[in-house]
Amino acid sequence: MTASKTPEGGSPLKIAAVIFPGFELLDVFGPLEMFGLLGELTEITMATMEQSPMASAAGPKVLPDALISEVDTQDILLIPGGIGTRALVKDPGFLEALRLVAAEAKIVASVCTGSALLAKAGLLDGRQATSNKLAFEWVTSQGPHVLWQPKARWVADEKFWTSSGIAAGIDMSLALIAHLFDKALADEIANRAEYLWNQNPNDDPFVLGISIE
Amino acid sequence: MTASKTPEGGSPLKIAAVIFPGFELLDVFGPLEMFGLLGELTEITMATMEQSPMASAAGPKVLPDALISEVDTQDILLIPGGIGTRALVKDPGFLEALRLVAAEAKIVASVCTGSALLAKAGLLDGRQATSNKLAFEWVTSQGPHVLWQPKARWVADEKFWTSSGIAAGIDMSLALIAHLFDKALADEIANRAEYLWNQNPNDDPFVLGISIE
Repeated sequence: MTASKTPEGGSPLKIAAVIFPGFELLDVFGPLEMFGLLGELTEITMATMEQSPMASAAGPKVLPDALISEVDTQDILLIPGGIGTRALVKDPGFLEALRLVAAEAKIVASVCTGSALLAKAGLLDGRQATSNKLAFEWVTSQGPHVLWQPKARWVADEKFWTSSGIAAGIDMSLALIAHLFDKALADEIANRAEYLWNQNPNDDPFVLGISIE
Repeated sequence: MTASKTPEGGSPLKIAAVIFPGFELLDVFGPLEMFGLLGELTEITMATMEQSPMASAAGPKVLPDALISEVDTQDILLIPGGIGTRALVKDPGFLEALRLVAAEAKIVASVCTGSALLAKAGLLDGRQATSNKLAFEWVTSQGPHVLWQPKARWVADEKFWTSSGIAAGIDMSLALIAHLFDKALADEIANRAEYLWNQNPNDDPFVLGISIE
């Protein structure tokens, strides 16, 4: 891995994760593990609405690096899901901050119910998108003009990438690495993480109504 | 899921994760996602040597809940790996704190190079254990009296559970949920996380020398 492999010919890949109270741990740290394994090829920022520690849905607290309003142009803006999304879809201040930072980002990638936030902000209108299967009804109600896909591990529609529930964000992140760098590097990262990558976005083992035992 | 399903007949499952500078994100948050989905059945503590934010290997910083020395008897003590383990194996103060807290814990579970810390503390002598495959030589050098298993997704030897690299910790955690509660609950958690659980500890796709494409 050399610096010349970065998209901009030397500058690191800038990734900001939007963190809020009640975010889902793996929605954030599955993707950030994959991007983090790129080492010096990435620069990760934890972006929040307030400069205070943010407790995840499970409890562990993360310290922010910057306010969402301070974040400049990002290569990837990561939007996790979690129970905290239920309050944020009713928060006009958050939705406006999300619209502004998403407009600047080169790629906007959501995991799980994170797509409900993008939908409510109007960013997915007329686009294909997906979300967590167990919260699908609530998520889709946040964006009546979105072309919701009930069977997809992840969906890419121009700069908007949306994944299914929780662990699906890891598969989408490896696909993003393949998209921004190359497939061999994504394979290498999956190997280093000892993660069996589901490489096919249409292979969705958790499609509604099917339970995996 | 009812409170009566907890191991102690009502009290939540107490889980402490040992966090240090340079910990690997997914080693911690893969397992804590699975345990966290148990909801009120669990109580999670982020335990550190100092009361200050701990930066992961990838950058994001976590806020501690308690000092390792303050942690009482835990149902599960989680020991992640990460580049920070290289310094900790040379830190007698940390190793002594680890010995004390591990002695009290009902189950001690490590992910990736976390088993190097347990090995260096002498806790795995005469026991079967495994670790990250790409760091296997360094890890095994930390515990010459450990019965290291080069092919295993995870290994359980009495109260010591050790997993292979990074994502393998998720599989081990689901096996711990099956062990402490029941298999149906572990299946339910894997489904909710939309995670394809590798349920066989002997099925190790990342055994040394085999590269997955």
